[in-house]
Amino acid sequence: MEWIEVPAQGLSLREIRQITSRSQSEDNAIRKSVEAILTAVQEQGDAAVRALTEQFDGVRLTEFRVTPAEIAAAVETVGPDFMQVLTTARDNIKAYHERQIQDSWFDTFRDGVKLGARYTPIQRVGVYVPGGTAAYPSTVLMDTVPAAVAGVPSIAVFTPPAKDGSVNPYILAAAHVAGATEIYKVGGAQSIAAAAYGTESIPPVFKIVGPGNAYVAMAKRLVFGTVGIDMIAGPSEVGILADEQANPAWVAADLLAQAEHDRRAAVFLATPSAAFAGAVEQEVERQLEELPRKEIAAASIKDHGKIFITADRSQAIEIMNLIAPEHLEIDFPMPEQYIPQIINAGAIFLGPYTPEPIGDYFAGPNHTLPTMGTAAFSSPLGVYDFVKRSSLLSYSKQAFDAVADQVMQFAEVEGLQAHGRAVKRRVENGK
Amino acid sequence: MEWIEVPAQGLSLREIRQITSRSQSEDNAIRKSVEAILTAVQEQGDAAVRALTEQFDGVRLTEFRVTPAEIAAAVETVGPDFMQVLTTARDNIKAYHERQIQDSWFDTFRDGVKLGARYTPIQRVGVYVPGGTAAYPSTVLMDTVPAAVAGVPSIAVFTPPAKDGSVNPYILAAAHVAGATEIYKVGGAQSIAAAAYGTESIPPVFKIVGPGNAYVAMAKRLVFGTVGIDMIAGPSEVGILADEQANPAWVAADLLAQAEHDRRAAVFLATPSAAFAGAVEQEVERQLEELPRKEIAAASIKDHGKIFITADRSQAIEIMNLIAPEHLEIDFPMPEQYIPQIINAGAIFLGPYTPEPIGDYFAGPNHTLPTMGTAAFSSPLGVYDFVKRSSLLSYSKQAFDAVADQVMQFAEVEGLQAHGRAVKRRVENGK
Repeated sequence: MEWIEVPAQGLSLREIRQITSRSQSEDNAIRKSVEAILTAVQEQGDAAVRALTEQFDGVRLTEFRVTPAEIAAAVETVGPDFMQVLTTARDNIKAYHERQIQDSWFDTFRDGVKLGARYTPIQRVGVYVPGGTAAYPSTVLMDTVPAAVAGVPSIAVFTPPAKDGSVNPYILAAAHVAGATEIYKVGGAQSIAAAAYGTESIPPVFKIVGPGNAYVAMAKRLVFGTVGIDMIAGPSEVGILADEQANPAWVAADLLAQAEHDRRAAVFLATPSAAFAGAVEQEVERQLEELPRKEIAAASIKDHGKIFITADRSQAIEIMNLIAPEHLEIDFPMPEQYIPQIINAGAIFLGPYTPEPIGDYFAGPNHTLPTMGTAAFSSPLGVYDFVKRSSLLSYSKQAFDAVADQVMQFAEVEGLQAHGRAVKRRVENGK
Repeated sequence: MEWIEVPAQGLSLREIRQITSRSQSEDNAIRKSVEAILTAVQEQGDAAVRALTEQFDGVRLTEFRVTPAEIAAAVETVGPDFMQVLTTARDNIKAYHERQIQDSWFDTFRDGVKLGARYTPIQRVGVYVPGGTAAYPSTVLMDTVPAAVAGVPSIAVFTPPAKDGSVNPYILAAAHVAGATEIYKVGGAQSIAAAAYGTESIPPVFKIVGPGNAYVAMAKRLVFGTVGIDMIAGPSEVGILADEQANPAWVAADLLAQAEHDRRAAVFLATPSAAFAGAVEQEVERQLEELPRKEIAAASIKDHGKIFITADRSQAIEIMNLIAPEHLEIDFPMPEQYIPQIINAGAIFLGPYTPEPIGDYFAGPNHTLPTMGTAAFSSPLGVYDFVKRSSLLSYSKQAFDAVADQVMQFAEVEGLQAHGRAVKRRVENGK
């Protein structure tokens, strides 16, 4: 890991960005190829989806939709023990997200003036779930349960089929437990196109959420506007605040849990204690040897592992606020006292018994979080991402007459005469 | 206007999209030119901004930032009467948006498990304000006041200078009243670049909001990810629900108030009464003749004006839900009773004395609204766009031990051994 001695005056946002930057170049070849896929699906519907699935997934499907029998078989394969784990995790996620529900309101603000906000669920959403070797049922739960809590009546999961036309049973079981109303064996950019534009057999959705590879990310970026999207997630990261009162082996284990995700994952430790930093680094080296995903974790630690040695705890917190990490662990004693100082972080894990994996799977808050410093301006996935608001306005004749002149002055200043006339006509006719 | 007789079974989403579609093609030449501007500003900072401002706005500026003296002079020019209008509008917008503030919370969910959400304002935002002949002080208020209500400590307004280096006084006055902390005489794609990347004299922002021309929209799309953006706003539209109990001259005036914005603005009337539709259309033709912006309004009415003749009020509402209009006026008698049936609309205007211009300027709800059918999945600009949430998680040792096994099972299924080990190590060491 690279050590950075933070100077007394701290570091600037620009310096932090240079230290923590990871390339995120978009490939022009990927853009071209995705554009062709989007056009094909938009023009030829199911036929294009079928051909592209044969080309990319190596299987020719008659039906895209997973049947109830396939779901029942998946539940059987997963077994009752893990079904229980899934159900408990689902219930925890549900309980947390229910706190995000907001009620519509419509109140009198001034005499004769009622204003309000109406909350309605998006009527149909798509959840993308990557396939391949690593199946992440936790992501299925995290992306689907908030939609279900929001009251979205139609939730379609899209995931690529294996060569034999099957779907990973853990993904099917998780989608079932989470409340998906349909599951389609369609992946890649073609699934994003089918979700955005609709085909003969797949009705279009209004919003698409979920992580994916570079093709899926590009497809989401390109259909953004036609439909809503959650975010373009970058590689993951963790920031840890700790000092010699923390356990270096545990801190090292948490850094490695992040690093094993991806060669481009980043891990940050900010500590006022150089001795503690040294102990953590030794533990990282030692524990790395035991890991099955050692190669990935080692690359992440080497290229994107940074240790900031700070003057004190406050300066360490400042550094994390500039980094705006996706996950922030506070491992100072009595961690709650530092909450008011945290400005930028996707999720904040407090104390030694709240390691990040507990949030990945189980606690309840969402694990789909803003990455790459975007926690400075965006939020975890939540119920609010599946609900939209309509403003409500109602003026009585008297209330209208009282402000008509001011509204006409505004229209005059902005040079929009028809706006003024729509008001004037009512003032005159209404008499 | 084009008349569409809605069949008994209604229309499908696909049919509605065909009827209401407006082209929104992105120009490759614009993309190339904007990419060059972004790179220039990123690499050369102020020097590039200065050169581009000279090139596009015809003025060479030493200082970009508007001085207090310039603001004072603008307030003088605007005059006390209109300053009073601005202040009243600001207060109304503030009162409505204060209802959107959400409180942080941190509660016990289960034994030894505390979860919460922390709301913090984005620390610095940029508000783009178009220049040119039509100055829209209302947009300055609508984009800035919610940021101020959210508690954003630093709000920078960007707007292009005139050839003499001045800025429209109504824009300066509105920015001042709204609570902007800085105003920069920089416009176009170069202002979006300066806001996103920062320069020597302009610190970077974390989010950019506000409407702009095709270059500004493209620049926002390209910096999305580096910073947050509000939305890529398309041309505006209004949908009106009315029948013979409404005043056709008022309905026509409201259609024209929308149409005068832009040749690509769209106006929709859904009514169960063909006679009423005929009366509205006659009024549109008659009133059109009186309008200074007649040419623009006529083009919008001709190309994008649609009248849907429906079987009854319910079918008219269904049509509007499929269109998902930016503005929806309900001009049926006792309009409040229909609110529960409205699923998709940016803002809902109730009754004959709530014409859309009253919401544009004055009532309080935001006039920055989702266009082009995007109200099906997105919301008006609000305080929530200037706030981000951090999840909070805290487990006691006992609570952690109780779920450790389930978390490890999850990690095992997902093939992430370092996740499992971060948990296991605590279970073993903690004993």
